[in-house]
Amino acid sequence: MAQSFGLIGLAVMGENLALNVERNGFPISVYNRTSTVTEKFAATRAQGKNVQATYSLEEFVQSLDRPRKILVMVKAGGPVDAVIGQLKPLLDEGDMIIDGGNSLYTDTERRVKELEAVNLRFMGMGVSGGEDGALNGPSLMPGGTAAAYEAMEPIVTKIAAQVDDGPCVTYIGPGGSGHYVKMVHNGIEYGDMQLIAEAYDLLKNVGGLTPMQLHEVFSEWNTTEELDSFLIEITADIFRKIDSETNEPLVDMVLDAAKQKGTGKWTVETSLDLGVSIPTIIAAVNARIMSSIKAERVAASKQLSGPGISKVDGDLKTFVNMVRDALYCSKICSYAQGMALLSRASKEFDYNLNLSETARIWKGGCIIRARFLNKIKDAFNEDPQLPNLLLAPEFKQTILDRQSAWREVVITAAKNGIPVPAFSASLDYFDSYRSAVLPQNLTQAQRDYFGAHTYERVDRPRGEFFHTDWDAPEAVVTGSRS
Amino acid sequence: MAQSFGLIGLAVMGENLALNVERNGFPISVYNRTSTVTEKFAATRAQGKNVQATYSLEEFVQSLDRPRKILVMVKAGGPVDAVIGQLKPLLDEGDMIIDGGNSLYTDTERRVKELEAVNLRFMGMGVSGGEDGALNGPSLMPGGTAAAYEAMEPIVTKIAAQVDDGPCVTYIGPGGSGHYVKMVHNGIEYGDMQLIAEAYDLLKNVGGLTPMQLHEVFSEWNTTEELDSFLIEITADIFRKIDSETNEPLVDMVLDAAKQKGTGKWTVETSLDLGVSIPTIIAAVNARIMSSIKAERVAASKQLSGPGISKVDGDLKTFVNMVRDALYCSKICSYAQGMALLSRASKEFDYNLNLSETARIWKGGCIIRARFLNKIKDAFNEDPQLPNLLLAPEFKQTILDRQSAWREVVITAAKNGIPVPAFSASLDYFDSYRSAVLPQNLTQAQRDYFGAHTYERVDRPRGEFFHTDWDAPEAVVTGSRS
Repeated sequence: MAQSFGLIGLAVMGENLALNVERNGFPISVYNRTSTVTEKFAATRAQGKNVQATYSLEEFVQSLDRPRKILVMVKAGGPVDAVIGQLKPLLDEGDMIIDGGNSLYTDTERRVKELEAVNLRFMGMGVSGGEDGALNGPSLMPGGTAAAYEAMEPIVTKIAAQVDDGPCVTYIGPGGSGHYVKMVHNGIEYGDMQLIAEAYDLLKNVGGLTPMQLHEVFSEWNTTEELDSFLIEITADIFRKIDSETNEPLVDMVLDAAKQKGTGKWTVETSLDLGVSIPTIIAAVNARIMSSIKAERVAASKQLSGPGISKVDGDLKTFVNMVRDALYCSKICSYAQGMALLSRASKEFDYNLNLSETARIWKGGCIIRARFLNKIKDAFNEDPQLPNLLLAPEFKQTILDRQSAWREVVITAAKNGIPVPAFSASLDYFDSYRSAVLPQNLTQAQRDYFGAHTYERVDRPRGEFFHTDWDAPEAVVTGSRS
Repeated sequence: MAQSFGLIGLAVMGENLALNVERNGFPISVYNRTSTVTEKFAATRAQGKNVQATYSLEEFVQSLDRPRKILVMVKAGGPVDAVIGQLKPLLDEGDMIIDGGNSLYTDTERRVKELEAVNLRFMGMGVSGGEDGALNGPSLMPGGTAAAYEAMEPIVTKIAAQVDDGPCVTYIGPGGSGHYVKMVHNGIEYGDMQLIAEAYDLLKNVGGLTPMQLHEVFSEWNTTEELDSFLIEITADIFRKIDSETNEPLVDMVLDAAKQKGTGKWTVETSLDLGVSIPTIIAAVNARIMSSIKAERVAASKQLSGPGISKVDGDLKTFVNMVRDALYCSKICSYAQGMALLSRASKEFDYNLNLSETARIWKGGCIIRARFLNKIKDAFNEDPQLPNLLLAPEFKQTILDRQSAWREVVITAAKNGIPVPAFSASLDYFDSYRSAVLPQNLTQAQRDYFGAHTYERVDRPRGEFFHTDWDAPEAVVTGSRS
C-alpha cells in the first residue's frame, strides 16, 4: 500500500512535522536532497515508524497515494521554486504541493497560478509553533487551491493543535492568503515580544525587580484572563533560569542584540502598500534594529546622559499593576492594527478572510497563542464588519478603564529616560484613532503651498480639491479644481 | 547654431526648468509627447526666448549640440523607460540622458548600467524645490555616470539655487545615488512636516493659541538660528491666511486628511532593508496614513473618550518655548536618522557619499532648506566618519540642554491625549541610542526558547552562539554552538 502523505526537506521543522503526521495515523514518505540526512532520520527518530525513506524524487513520488499530497519544508525563495520545478514533471493531474515555509505571499500567489495552469494544486501554508509545535501540534494557516484543502483536511485537522473549539487550522482563502496571514501573525508576534521587553525594562529599572521577582510577576500575569499566553509563560520561565557558568540569572548573561528574519519587515512593507497604520508592530521591528547596533550604543552611552532613573517610591504592587495595564492596552492596539491590516488585505486581494476563524486558529499551537484570542474571536463573530478592534465593546471598555494607568507608565518612562517605543506608539495610535480632528490640515496646506498639491475643505464634500496662492499677502485666491 | 540643452516633458516642473536653463544663457530645445502642449508653451511662457520647440524626437535630437544633454521630466516608472527606449537609437556615443523625476533608485541603478553598456551616459538627478524652485533655483542631486556630470556641470551650477557657499548642486556619486539622496531628502521632509504638525496641535489645543498667535510664534521661530527654514516660514504664512468664503482662518477650513506620494514609503523600505533605525520618519509616514481615514476617526471619536484637555495654566510663553525645544530636539533626531541611513547606504552601495556636501546642497532651493543645515555641514566636515549626528558636539550639547523640556512636552501630550507620534518616536530614539543596555536580551532568550535561534553572551566575544533548554527546570544546558 502506498503512503498517504509526502514531505520534502528534513531540517528540524520537517522532521517534526513528518513524525506528527505519522503519529496521527498517516503513513508518510520523506525525501531530502542530501541523502545522508534522510538515512540518519530513518535510522534514529523515524525508526520503527511508518515512515518510508526515499532517495530520489522519482521514488518519492511513486511511493505516494493519488492525489499526491506533498509538503515542502525548504528555505523560502529560490529553493521552493527549485523543488516545484523538479516535482512538476513527475506529478499527475490533481496532485498537490503544499509549501510550509515562510514564503512571501506574492511568491505563493504566483505559484498557485503557475500550478493551477497545469492542472496541479498548490497551497501556501503558514506553520507556527516552532519545533515543539511542529511535533506536537502547530497552528496551520493553509491558503491556495480550495480543492487541495479538501483533500488534505483529514490530515491537517489531526496534526494541528487542538483547542476547546476545534483544531487550529482552517482554510484561509485563495492565492497567497495563508502566507499573508502567517506573515501578519509574525508581525503581531514581534509586537508582543517588544511590549513584553518594555514591561521588563520598566519593572527592572524603575521597579527595581530582580529576575526572581520578575519570574513571580510574569507567573502571576500568566494566570489572568488578559495575559495568559505562551509568551508570558516562557518569559516567566526565562527569569527563573540560572546560568551554570556564573550562577547568575541567565537572562542577565544574554546579549541585548536581537536578530530578525524577514516576516516583520514584510508586514511593515505591506502595511505601507495598503495604507494601514501599524505603528506598534513597526516600533517592534525597529527596536530590534536599534538593539543590533550594540557597540555603537555602548559608545554613545558614554556621551549622552539622560535624566537618571528614580526608582518607584510608592507602592511597588501598584506600579507593577500599572505596567500590566499598559502592556495590555498596548497589546490590544497591536492586535487592532494586525487585524485591520488583514481586513484591508482581504478586500484588496479578494481573500475573503474570516477574522473570527483567524483568531480561533491562533488559540493553540502558535507563538502568539493566548486566552485573549477568545475575545478577538468573539468580537469578530459578533460583528464581522467591525472596523477596528478598539471599537469592540469588550476592548473599548478595557482601554477606557485602564488608559490613565497606561498614560502614567508612558509618562514615567519619558521622565526616567527609559525607551518605550512600542508602548508610546500604541498610545499615539489610540489617541490618533479617537481624534476626529488631527493636525494634518496644516500638512495639506503646506503641500498645497509648495507643490500645488491641492486640499479638500471641511465644509465641502470629499473629492472637491482646492488650491490657494498662500503667500499672496492680501488677495485670497481659492478656486475649485474639482 | 545648435541648442546646448534639451528637455523632454512639459508639465509645470519641466516648463520651469526649461525657462531656468534658458534664463541662465543656455539655448534649449524642448519636446513633449502631446504637441499641443509644446505649441502652447512656445506661444506663451517661452515666447521671445531662446527656446526651440520641436515636434518629433528626431527633430529634437538633431537640434542639440554634441555631446547631447537631455533632461527627461516625465512620470517615474514606465514612462521614463519608454522615453529612454525611443531616444536610444537616435543618440550617439557620449550623449547623456538625465532623469529629473522622482525615480526609484534601483530603477536608476539599472538604467545607468543599460546605457553605459551602449556607450551612452545616464544620470538620475533629484530635483527639489517644487515649481518655484524649478524656475528660480532648485537643489539638484545628480548621480550616475561621472563623465556626464562633468559635461553638464556648467549648466547645473548655474540653474541651481545659489547660497553663501556655492550652488546647491554637486556630483552625488555613481549609480542610483542621486535619486537615493533625493528619496532620503523627502523622508526627512516628511519628518519635518509631521514635527511641525505636532507642535501646532499642542500649541493650538493645549496652549489655546489662535491662528494669528500661531502666525506670530512661527514668525518668531523663523528668526532663530535653530529653526529658520522654508517650512517654518510657510507655516507662519499659512496661519495668517484668511478664507474669503467664510472669513475664517483658511487653515481651519482645510481637511485634515493628508496625502503622500511614494518617496516616504521608499525611505522606510530601504531603512528596513539596510537595518537602519529611522523611527521619526516612519512615524511621519504613518501619521499621514492615520490622517487619511478621516471618516473612521470621526466615528471612533464618538466612542473612545480621552482624558480631556487641560489648557496651560502657567506661563504661556514658557510652554511655547518648551514646544520649540521639543520640536528642535526631535528635528535633530530625524536628521540624525536620515544621515545615518545615507551613511549606511553609501557603504552598502559604494556611493562614496560626502555627507557634508549633501547637507550643503540642501541649504537652498529645496523644501527642507534651513539655516540649521550649516551645522550639519560643519559636523560632517569636522568628522566625516561621525557615527551619528547626536554625537556631534553642537547637537549633543543642544539636546542635553533641552531634553527636560522635550520630555515635559511628551508627558504633557500623553496626559492630555494629544497624539505626538513623531515627538515620542524621536525621544525613544534618543533614549534607545544612548542605552548601553536595552531589554532585547529577553527577546533573544525568547527566540532561543521557542525557536532555538541561539543567543550571544555578555561575557563572551561576539559571534559565539549559545543555546539553552530554557524550560528544563533544574538541569542547565548551555552549550556553545559557535
